[in-house]
Amino acid sequence: MSSATTASAATPQTAASQDPLVVFTPSGKRGRFPVGTPVLTAARQLGVDLDSVCGGRGICSKCQITPSYGEFSKFGVVSEPEALSDWNSVEQRYKDKRGLIDGRRLGCQATVQADIVIDVPPESQVHKQVVRKAATARTIIMDPATRLYFIEVEEPDMHEPTGDLERLARALREQWQIADIRADLSVLTKLQPVLRKGNWQVTVALYRDHHEGPARLLDIWPGLYEGGLYGLAIDLGSTTIAAHLCDLVSGQVLCSSGVMNPQIRFGEDLMSRVSYAMMNPGGDKDMTRAVRTAINGLTQSLSTEAGIDPATIFEAVIVCNPVMHHLLLGIDPVELGQAPFALATSSSLSLRAKDLEFTTLNDRAQVYLLPCIAGHVGADAAAVALSEEPGKSKDLVLVVDVGTNAEILLGNTTRVLACSSPTGPAFEGAQISAGQRAAPGAIERVEIDPVTKEPRFRIIGTDLWSDEPGFAAAAAGSGITGICGSGIIEAVAEMRMAGLLDDSGLIGSADQTGTPRCIPEGRTHAYVIHDARADGGPLISVTQGDIRAIQLAKSALYAGARLLMDEMGVDKVDRVVLAGAFGAHISPKHAMVLGMIPDVPLDKVFSAGNAAGTGARIALCNIASRAEIETTVGQITKIETAIEPKFQEHFVAANAIPHKTDPFPELAKVVSLPSPSFNTRGEGGNGDDGGRRRRRRA
Amino acid sequence: MSSATTASAATPQTAASQDPLVVFTPSGKRGRFPVGTPVLTAARQLGVDLDSVCGGRGICSKCQITPSYGEFSKFGVVSEPEALSDWNSVEQRYKDKRGLIDGRRLGCQATVQADIVIDVPPESQVHKQVVRKAATARTIIMDPATRLYFIEVEEPDMHEPTGDLERLARALREQWQIADIRADLSVLTKLQPVLRKGNWQVTVALYRDHHEGPARLLDIWPGLYEGGLYGLAIDLGSTTIAAHLCDLVSGQVLCSSGVMNPQIRFGEDLMSRVSYAMMNPGGDKDMTRAVRTAINGLTQSLSTEAGIDPATIFEAVIVCNPVMHHLLLGIDPVELGQAPFALATSSSLSLRAKDLEFTTLNDRAQVYLLPCIAGHVGADAAAVALSEEPGKSKDLVLVVDVGTNAEILLGNTTRVLACSSPTGPAFEGAQISAGQRAAPGAIERVEIDPVTKEPRFRIIGTDLWSDEPGFAAAAAGSGITGICGSGIIEAVAEMRMAGLLDDSGLIGSADQTGTPRCIPEGRTHAYVIHDARADGGPLISVTQGDIRAIQLAKSALYAGARLLMDEMGVDKVDRVVLAGAFGAHISPKHAMVLGMIPDVPLDKVFSAGNAAGTGARIALCNIASRAEIETTVGQITKIETAIEPKFQEHFVAANAIPHKTDPFPELAKVVSLPSPSFNTRGEGGNGDDGGRRRRRRA
Repeated sequence: MSSATTASAATPQTAASQDPLVVFTPSGKRGRFPVGTPVLTAARQLGVDLDSVCGGRGICSKCQITPSYGEFSKFGVVSEPEALSDWNSVEQRYKDKRGLIDGRRLGCQATVQADIVIDVPPESQVHKQVVRKAATARTIIMDPATRLYFIEVEEPDMHEPTGDLERLARALREQWQIADIRADLSVLTKLQPVLRKGNWQVTVALYRDHHEGPARLLDIWPGLYEGGLYGLAIDLGSTTIAAHLCDLVSGQVLCSSGVMNPQIRFGEDLMSRVSYAMMNPGGDKDMTRAVRTAINGLTQSLSTEAGIDPATIFEAVIVCNPVMHHLLLGIDPVELGQAPFALATSSSLSLRAKDLEFTTLNDRAQVYLLPCIAGHVGADAAAVALSEEPGKSKDLVLVVDVGTNAEILLGNTTRVLACSSPTGPAFEGAQISAGQRAAPGAIERVEIDPVTKEPRFRIIGTDLWSDEPGFAAAAAGSGITGICGSGIIEAVAEMRMAGLLDDSGLIGSADQTGTPRCIPEGRTHAYVIHDARADGGPLISVTQGDIRAIQLAKSALYAGARLLMDEMGVDKVDRVVLAGAFGAHISPKHAMVLGMIPDVPLDKVFSAGNAAGTGARIALCNIASRAEIETTVGQITKIETAIEPKFQEHFVAANAIPHKTDPFPELAKVVSLPSPSFNTRGEGGNGDDGGRRRRRRA
Repeated sequence: MSSATTASAATPQTAASQDPLVVFTPSGKRGRFPVGTPVLTAARQLGVDLDSVCGGRGICSKCQITPSYGEFSKFGVVSEPEALSDWNSVEQRYKDKRGLIDGRRLGCQATVQADIVIDVPPESQVHKQVVRKAATARTIIMDPATRLYFIEVEEPDMHEPTGDLERLARALREQWQIADIRADLSVLTKLQPVLRKGNWQVTVALYRDHHEGPARLLDIWPGLYEGGLYGLAIDLGSTTIAAHLCDLVSGQVLCSSGVMNPQIRFGEDLMSRVSYAMMNPGGDKDMTRAVRTAINGLTQSLSTEAGIDPATIFEAVIVCNPVMHHLLLGIDPVELGQAPFALATSSSLSLRAKDLEFTTLNDRAQVYLLPCIAGHVGADAAAVALSEEPGKSKDLVLVVDVGTNAEILLGNTTRVLACSSPTGPAFEGAQISAGQRAAPGAIERVEIDPVTKEPRFRIIGTDLWSDEPGFAAAAAGSGITGICGSGIIEAVAEMRMAGLLDDSGLIGSADQTGTPRCIPEGRTHAYVIHDARADGGPLISVTQGDIRAIQLAKSALYAGARLLMDEMGVDKVDRVVLAGAFGAHISPKHAMVLGMIPDVPLDKVFSAGNAAGTGARIALCNIASRAEIETTVGQITKIETAIEPKFQEHFVAANAIPHKTDPFPELAKVVSLPSPSFNTRGEGGNGDDGGRRRRRRA
């Protein structure tokens, strides 16, 4: 073992006042160290976040630092070029073979000679901060449960007979202060050849549980392992399974992708899947198999896209609603279909990927499932709480995670409430006549001229509006294929603003609205957005049925939010965060015209993107966040929408667009809604439809 | 929950000096308790060993006690018939439905009214003592890692949403003081239906690890489970796999059985199996598959014999030598074939039976492997140490576990030494011309008249000697089929005593010995024990080759023992314990004539039976013994026979029968050995053979 390793052990060195002063930036941490102390040792003793995989052997180059020379009055230090030792042979060899950025030194080899200021570049920090795109969002501190450790293992000695695993464990104890480990049989079988191939120097991947117990030996490689270490953050939704493939060292997302949840063929929403399981013996097993297969496929395609070996994926964190949770685990969800909606287990789960038949990951990969909040409020809601932290907000924030099942959180530092609401898949473009998932060619933005009633739109894949020059050429590749979730929300809201739709949700006829784009469809009408039938293309319109589906969805969402506001004893909230797989794409104004969310100033509506997915990513990258959310979940007050009589009342009242009774004063400041009425046969607001649909759940 | 349960919780009751005095027998524990205290509560508070599975609900009847009435001057108590409460409805109902032995009461229902003496019958004790047959052996205190617990689980409440598992865990905490549990997915999937079927009363089987961490939920049944709870103690030898099927509640052995280790087809002894793995890629995997399949078959046949469902076997404890250990685990044993004989892991292992492909046990059964002592001294030696406890012996005891690989322990309270010695399978009847396993028809005892040189023998299956009336009829069923291990030892020793064999191990000719039973066989001779060829039966003789095989085996055994005696600095031991699958059947006198064991008074040679198997059984039935042996193993000094130059020297010297140089004064007191010499061609003691054989190992 090199002397640097010994010096970098935990024993504090005695420092005298005449010893050189070392100041680390950006942390500003400082201390005096005897001449000859390796920079890595000084950093460790001061708690400066300086990485090292090889434990100071000059192999891994993770501990690169940049000495800063000159006069630093801020720190009271004058740093001369001689303040670090000359290049030793290990460092020189590393530079010659692998190269080092100019000005960089290896922290384990360079030793302190005089007062000095040392900068730790971001890539040398273990606990890097990963900045998320959304402006309001928290940063993620890298401290994943799974990490790599390079160790030198003592060779076996006949006269002191201990197993190779026991000597490996001792090396981890002595070189990395890891108290104890356990190894699966499948690692044990490769342990001996790998130790010998690496000449007793190996890299191990260890999984530390955030609760207790020994670390789990996930894998072992001869010498310094320079392959990747990856993890998956999976948001398992009723309609869509979305996943981020993350680098567990840098924290970067290599790629993200989603697939449809194949369980859709057993039922579009949660309750129809529960019914399927109840009606068909073994039906739950079929759904379990389907979702596991889909996750395996998604893992494979993400790995291919990123160009990595899926066997280098060592962890997955999964968030999902309770029904998805039970079906993933292979638990019959029947109890979740009836009061009192008892979960088989509500705690977080640490499982082996193998037990979930995740066959594409590393054979010993671990899976962490966030805790569920209640029978209808799942691990996805917990993930949203982890990502958006309503409990740390000073103002009262409403977080709405829009999906087939919406997760709704309301809270501030005093209290957090949560519920879920079955919105159905309309917001994801399903059950919509021209609906489709968000893919190139899908209409995602819509504007309707209030005078001419003519629409213009944008599709995914080009920034041009349909009435701008060059649009036809830009759209030629994908075609114009349908309307995605954010597109249907804007279309319906724009129809309402343009007077094509009355507040009960009825589409007017061509006569009533004065535009031939309102065409008859059976006894109702549809509004044509794009008609390419002459060229053999589709007719893309918003039908009366589409409006009804959106009304059901948005009423459920609004009613859930109102129920939480009732419980909190408030009539308005300070801030709204729209989350969900397509939450970032929803226009706040249009959402409010629809009455999806309570009235707030438009600049108080924020997009958080896929907050559940982000929560999964946080739990993947930061082990402490697992304990944190487990505690938080215990403090959240759960509201069960299915049995609250007021939910029904709120639901019916929210059927009107934007609302039958609630005023929307903030909305009125920016939009004035016309008040046509197209009801010529006394048809009401269609509240009964919703009533029938709701009763299926209770 | 019944009031009895509440009262039986851990809170001590305030007892006043006028409260009734309760004295429990046989423990003699005593204390004062308020009138109305259930007997079970009093027992628990005093630490009296009184069983209860249902936690005091009057369901399981495990807590039966017998009140003793009369004047007990020994205890200073006068116990009147009114000292216990009248029968309450729960107790009466139990008696009417299930019956109770006269004088018995249910300890959870009967309450203390006045001074009383209460006897706890053996079957009501949790920590029963299981008496082993061998007189010198320790008793086993029942406290297995896997136990049953009856609990009442709170029903789910929508307004306080916790999972069923979390409420089950709370019940275990409150009703049984079990801190925490973990459940596999396969239990989670059945949890909800079982809880509901049992109307929230269930029995669970829990596995507690003796180190740390939460208990593992192995199974769950509705209501009070009255099926069995079984475990296997397996001694996995190179030649034989022996197993005991044990009741984990009573500690009784239901049945025992053995099968040949099918790995024999890959090599008869350990080193030839290691060679097979080295020479044949994938050969180790073939051997792993073979032994796992054999254990599955053995489990099935034991279950069938005992008439139990193998799914009620929840634990297995396995002991074996290091090569068997690695092959069982699926680890290539190549490192065990060459210095420094590094084990992949030496610690004890707690595994899931499923990971070992033990498919016939309960799906979630646990397997415990005792720790290995060194590269050549395995978990079987550890098990012998656990069973025979040389470290607790005041006199110096030599424990010899005879098998294809012999485990040898020497020690007393000051120090324990251990080694293993490759004796080969001759002692198990293999590699012997007429050898066979111990089964009906096998010759197990032999006597040779020193004057007439005529033999007589006994076979397994009848107590008659072959020269006694009725023998032919008694032997007709099985026939006389061959010689088993103890038979060949006696035969060779008797030949030596009758002057048919000289001290170098040469069999004399008919001329030299004066008996026509010495027949020529090639250039050597054989001694005929039984010739049934005239009737179409076998010729059973002891050939020169058989003698050589026995000489190699016994020299290895003796040399190992000598090496330990050298290390201990002694020339003789106080006591010898012969152990092994057939250790109980070896005649001490014959073993000493052969020179298998050092010279001691014959009454200081004891049989311990299958001590390794007994060690496995102790570890199965008593969780504390696992921690104990793990500590003990760390304190044993291991001697590596393969690299000790003196081993070779001892081995060569031990080739003579009984020994070339060591005196056997105690043997001489009871047996006088003739001194013929049949070497007419200057043939030596055949030490070279042994040398060649030995060198294959190092």
